[in-house]
Amino acid sequence: MTRIVNNPDFVVEDMLKGFIKANKHLVTATENSRVIKYINAPVEGKVGIVTGGGSGHKPAFIGYIGKNMCDAVAVGEIFSSPTANAFLDAISAASSGKGVACLYGNYAGDNMNVNMAIRKAKALGIEVKTVVANDDCASAGKSEREKRRGVAGEVLMWKIGGAKASQGADLDEVIKAAQKAIDNTRSVGIGTAPCTIPAVGHPNFTIEAGMMEVGIGHHGEPGIAVESLKKADEIAKKITDIILPDLPFNSGDEVVVLLSGLGATPVMEQYIVYNKVDSILREKGINIYKAYVGNYFTSLEMMGITLTVMKLDDELKELIDIPVESVGLTQFGK
Amino acid sequence: MTRIVNNPDFVVEDMLKGFIKANKHLVTATENSRVIKYINAPVEGKVGIVTGGGSGHKPAFIGYIGKNMCDAVAVGEIFSSPTANAFLDAISAASSGKGVACLYGNYAGDNMNVNMAIRKAKALGIEVKTVVANDDCASAGKSEREKRRGVAGEVLMWKIGGAKASQGADLDEVIKAAQKAIDNTRSVGIGTAPCTIPAVGHPNFTIEAGMMEVGIGHHGEPGIAVESLKKADEIAKKITDIILPDLPFNSGDEVVVLLSGLGATPVMEQYIVYNKVDSILREKGINIYKAYVGNYFTSLEMMGITLTVMKLDDELKELIDIPVESVGLTQFGK
Repeated sequence: MTRIVNNPDFVVEDMLKGFIKANKHLVTATENSRVIKYINAPVEGKVGIVTGGGSGHKPAFIGYIGKNMCDAVAVGEIFSSPTANAFLDAISAASSGKGVACLYGNYAGDNMNVNMAIRKAKALGIEVKTVVANDDCASAGKSEREKRRGVAGEVLMWKIGGAKASQGADLDEVIKAAQKAIDNTRSVGIGTAPCTIPAVGHPNFTIEAGMMEVGIGHHGEPGIAVESLKKADEIAKKITDIILPDLPFNSGDEVVVLLSGLGATPVMEQYIVYNKVDSILREKGINIYKAYVGNYFTSLEMMGITLTVMKLDDELKELIDIPVESVGLTQFGK
Repeated sequence: MTRIVNNPDFVVEDMLKGFIKANKHLVTATENSRVIKYINAPVEGKVGIVTGGGSGHKPAFIGYIGKNMCDAVAVGEIFSSPTANAFLDAISAASSGKGVACLYGNYAGDNMNVNMAIRKAKALGIEVKTVVANDDCASAGKSEREKRRGVAGEVLMWKIGGAKASQGADLDEVIKAAQKAIDNTRSVGIGTAPCTIPAVGHPNFTIEAGMMEVGIGHHGEPGIAVESLKKADEIAKKITDIILPDLPFNSGDEVVVLLSGLGATPVMEQYIVYNKVDSILREKGINIYKAYVGNYFTSLEMMGITLTVMKLDDELKELIDIPVESVGLTQFGK
């Protein structure tokens, strides 16, 4: 293991300190050391946007705190859910009295802790509603979407929810937009090499050299097939064949494509896959309105990529173009 | 080797196609397939900003094409200089008649090809002046700065040069600002694992597991010491001990810090190192005006980090805050 850390048991603490110092124009600490908030949170008159999840997925989750994106984030250990208390304190930090939208991924620990936090928030007079991301096509069948995990599509859910809240929408409108975003989004990942949690010291799953795992999860959850590593163009074909029929995406649709590396796969290779994904979609008459390619949602130094496609309507198109300023995603308008 | 490519001999071609398709709001192809330009280049009434270098350093170099940054970039093979012809075509693509600043790194191939391109550009009536980045402290002694290589400090040179040009400055003023930026900048890298050029198929240098190479170059050029891998805080101490006395940076100075990963080192670890770098600088009375932490200048999937520090004066401070929009760096104002 070739890790640049101090005490492997305190990587999250050390990382958070550095993150807050480096990004003090955007984020600030709170009384709960596992909750980071936007410097202007709670934003007066705006629905609060909260998320949270395990560490090791940079820039997710804390990198999406900022203007017109997330107001507060609950931070877990590496690949582990934040506590209910961290979610509660994030909710409080984001609450300006207009309600809080908690937009998070479908994992057992997160579900349990968010629900506990919501009950406590209610006792404090804070109304919280949720959207649970389940964009990962590979984690359950089409008829069991409620079992699917949330993966990189969460970035688009936060973008849309954050943009809607920035327009002064009420809690129900924010939830409706974020839910529509994730309902219109499908993702799938390909893993080519595992990662190592510093405190564990060895990979907690294996991908043999020369093989790839189709549908792998962000924590090494088993995918749907282990096969020999294919060429980039064949991988692009394979992952679009999984994603496109699932929604389905049809000729004439306008979409956003987000192609993320899992950590150690060079961005060069991500663009090589994107090149073919773009061609495949265009051949099918699907129009790519906007593309994001880069390390938007990683798993330490895992190798591989994830592909995410979101179908747009007029509202989502307007919201995806709203300016945003965060460590993980900063964009001017259209 | 676990690479997601098609033909390993054509990774640059395939990558460029994907890059142009994904970022069509910012960049466009030119008649020379190895030159990419800003969609609005040449920008009327503005000094053109050109750079170029080998591929494999994403987001460098093409990721820094955009508004208030680089106008055109010459693209080389992996870790190899672009041709003189590519530099010449980049210069032509960036030229609006106000002259072109070619801001590049100090490598033999780049020097030779840029100088050849300048002679040809002169024959076409285009005035070109250069700044040659030499921010890497480890590549030669303090008295031989002209021998030092350019590394991640180039990002700050482009930022400053691009910002100055955006203000309507003339060629001499742009060159003066970019030269000041690099003269005020020092960098050093630590490598912990090598990378593999796809067409080669095995690393072209080695770093043994559990070791680190202090002062390693962006292409695996030998550093100044090979030692057992230290803790993050000790690494922070080691690299600041190299950088700070070199300029020197003194108590009362205001600086920009750029801490980049080399590719596969998780951003989490970069923040762990940044945390200590920040503490060390503050203890010395050096004020960090702005910090950039992330994968700003990489070497495929090499592991390790580079630290870059730039001393500010009033002009550099104003210029570093100018808004910029590119794939590698997008920021609103201050």
